[in-house]
Amino acid sequence: MKAQLGGDEGKHKFVLKTPKGTRDYSPKQMAIREKVFNAIITCFKRHGAEVIDTPVFELKETLTGKYGEDSKLIYDLKDQGGELLSLRYDLTVPFARYLAMNKITNIKRYHIAKVYRRDNPAMTRGRYREFYQCDFDIAGQFDPMIPDAECLKIVHEILSDLQLGDFLVKVNDRRILDGMFAVCGVSDSKFRTICSSVDKLDKMPWEEVRSEMVGEKGLSPEAADHIGEYVQLRGEHRRYDGLVGMFDPKGRKVPCVGVSIGIERIFSILEQRLEASEEKIRTTETQVLVASAQKKLLEERLKLISELWDAGIKAEVLYKKNPKLLNQLQYCEDTGIPLVAIVGEQELKDGVVKLRVVATREEVNVRRENLVEEIRMRTSQP
Amino acid sequence: MKAQLGGDEGKHKFVLKTPKGTRDYSPKQMAIREKVFNAIITCFKRHGAEVIDTPVFELKETLTGKYGEDSKLIYDLKDQGGELLSLRYDLTVPFARYLAMNKITNIKRYHIAKVYRRDNPAMTRGRYREFYQCDFDIAGQFDPMIPDAECLKIVHEILSDLQLGDFLVKVNDRRILDGMFAVCGVSDSKFRTICSSVDKLDKMPWEEVRSEMVGEKGLSPEAADHIGEYVQLRGEHRRYDGLVGMFDPKGRKVPCVGVSIGIERIFSILEQRLEASEEKIRTTETQVLVASAQKKLLEERLKLISELWDAGIKAEVLYKKNPKLLNQLQYCEDTGIPLVAIVGEQELKDGVVKLRVVATREEVNVRRENLVEEIRMRTSQP
Repeated sequence: MKAQLGGDEGKHKFVLKTPKGTRDYSPKQMAIREKVFNAIITCFKRHGAEVIDTPVFELKETLTGKYGEDSKLIYDLKDQGGELLSLRYDLTVPFARYLAMNKITNIKRYHIAKVYRRDNPAMTRGRYREFYQCDFDIAGQFDPMIPDAECLKIVHEILSDLQLGDFLVKVNDRRILDGMFAVCGVSDSKFRTICSSVDKLDKMPWEEVRSEMVGEKGLSPEAADHIGEYVQLRGEHRRYDGLVGMFDPKGRKVPCVGVSIGIERIFSILEQRLEASEEKIRTTETQVLVASAQKKLLEERLKLISELWDAGIKAEVLYKKNPKLLNQLQYCEDTGIPLVAIVGEQELKDGVVKLRVVATREEVNVRRENLVEEIRMRTSQP
Repeated sequence: MKAQLGGDEGKHKFVLKTPKGTRDYSPKQMAIREKVFNAIITCFKRHGAEVIDTPVFELKETLTGKYGEDSKLIYDLKDQGGELLSLRYDLTVPFARYLAMNKITNIKRYHIAKVYRRDNPAMTRGRYREFYQCDFDIAGQFDPMIPDAECLKIVHEILSDLQLGDFLVKVNDRRILDGMFAVCGVSDSKFRTICSSVDKLDKMPWEEVRSEMVGEKGLSPEAADHIGEYVQLRGEHRRYDGLVGMFDPKGRKVPCVGVSIGIERIFSILEQRLEASEEKIRTTETQVLVASAQKKLLEERLKLISELWDAGIKAEVLYKKNPKLLNQLQYCEDTGIPLVAIVGEQELKDGVVKLRVVATREEVNVRRENLVEEIRMRTSQP
């Protein structure tokens, strides 16, 4: 049941902002989001993945010890009695918890959900505190490199499908990092903290990362420079850096390979592109507006639209007793509805509906029993 | 990028439970969930609604004073510096905040998202602390009862489409409740707290609600009995009680009418029905398994599956260098994949692929250039 908003309580002043690092999605932004999700989900399904979901929060102890120094970025819930909870920081730990809890040793699953990090937001570049992760993982004991190859294929398919332009896929392996750090003389005790510095190459230049390693983390300047050679060898960080990550956890008995699509940066790119192009994007899929040219036809409009809805046609009607025809046509122009079905006294007598094509202003009389078919034909997706 | 789970850190013990009142969704449960969401979203789109999304948390003060005594059920986030936040309790307050923030006076939108209440869970009956709300609302100044009628139509369409059996739609109006309370002699100061008791008729019998009104809330026994006559007049609470709520907030300048579909109870019903029927439910949509009967054909399998993926075919391959044909066929039986495309030395020479129908064991040789079309034809949805 709905909250009893309004009435006596309606005079409260609302704080007119979303929390720091978060945003609403407007209908236009949702249209872009759906397009991107659709491409990703279609791809994951094409590769035979199942889908799971987990709660937005986990027991605090489930997350404890999994994120090293990044733990300070975890959102905790207030202790209101009962269990101590934290918002999920990624989808990987909940996935591992799910596998262990259900004793699953073999699964190919995807999971698309919001995760939460109390990080410094940079919203113009698509860095939020609440953001989506789109994870595809293959867990199980398999012959080497076959699942890995599929993950690469998936990245390629999704980025191609979204037509983002040229892209560069970087392939990492935890063992390469292990080896690189060993060669550069990073001690085991510094391994994780230096890892986290290297991760920051996404957001800051090498010089800053180096000074963090040496200044804050006490790595020798020689070791840092040595690491610098490797990370610079791997190329500058370009347009889709950090978009794709691959990992290979081996600590638990279930080997796992996966890919995580960083959707927010893709949103940013597509949003900016759309704004630049001034392309009109529809936020509804309505095929036809049921209208009338004369007064006192509300019931007839509702009767007709009800028939259309029951036949699966996407249809709207203006919520006015006696709307002006001009206003009804204007509504179609504004929202991109391609057809208008006009009822009038004469049409009702003749058993027809006047169907108007908004773009061309062409009008045809269609027999009522053929109207659904006519609308379907004229609005079928190419 | 993924969390560096595993490796040295992989030996942590996971707490093997989800927080109280929450649950994971397994692939089977997700299949049911998608079916239900699909019916709901299709209906909302059929009625020309746009879609929005808001963050999972709001500023604490945005929620303050909106829920009366139910405020104690709100999840607060820990004060970790910065803004004080709470998890959303419903989708109505975030919607009102969104309208005010963007100065929108006219919108038909839907919003499907999880909300959070620290209530007593009753999970077998579909009562959770994390649960979905599916809200459709029409906000704006319109002629009376036209949007209201559309909301009723929507409820009818969704419940019919889901084939849940007979259902009863109850229509409420805040003004009826106002009038009823006035007639029964409920003072203005007790209005909200008595409202909240009446709401509990969903979960407890009238006798308990009455004793709460009289005992805890200090309503006179006469007034309580008077209310009792009305609520009992409205009939016993049956199979879909509380599934649908309609409201009509008028305090703000944007009049609003809407419908909220309580999805969790529908999930419960469909889950239980599915378990009872022992019907097999597929959790993937894979059309074909790419297999081989002989050894050393991994590359050929990957080449073929890559062709199929690029043509949009949903395909899988076993992650083994040299899988046994029997294991490959068994995998299809287990997961419901209807077709197997078998590559072998001879087939490669002849430029064909052996296509096997799992259900009938029928096998045909298909020319490689016709394979995609053949698979499409044999797996087209009816």
